[in-house]
Amino acid sequence: MSHQWQERKRPVRLEARYEFKDYGTLRDFLDEAADLSEQEGLYPDMGFGRDYVNITIHVDEGEEELGEKHHHFAELLDTLVKKFT
Amino acid sequence: MSHQWQERKRPVRLEARYEFKDYGTLRDFLDEAADLSEQEGLYPDMGFGRDYVNITIHVDEGEEELGEKHHHFAELLDTLVKKFT
Repeated sequence: MSHQWQERKRPVRLEARYEFKDYGTLRDFLDEAADLSEQEGLYPDMGFGRDYVNITIHVDEGEEELGEKHHHFAELLDTLVKKFT
Repeated sequence: MSHQWQERKRPVRLEARYEFKDYGTLRDFLDEAADLSEQEGLYPDMGFGRDYVNITIHVDEGEEELGEKHHHFAELLDTLVKKFT
């Protein structure tokens, strides 16, 4: 996994920040990231402005630990973002 | 302006939260909201998950007060969201 992702506690989660050269590129990334969410059934919290996206992959209600699916999704996003940065 | 928008201080900003019935609807909203940003040259911070979007319209660097353009953008988003909720 990319060094960008940080695992945090209370609540347990993975966080990363991606930056983009312009808003159009950011939009294309968000659109493909949303496709990934629908494909994987995993919906991170994403916060974005003109040139950045902060991503938080959180566990679902009732889960106490990050699992393979969360780390896998982080890797998918890292692979995706390489197309856009 | 919708009662949804709240004006906050330090830093001065407008905030609102919209909720959506499903992720596809939320995606359509985000896409059209991004069109509005490009049209108006105003890029709020947006944080979203599977069924909600939190929006923060902030002043630009060097600005100290919210102006007409910020309130106008809030109104445009309120009009837009009615298509999707």
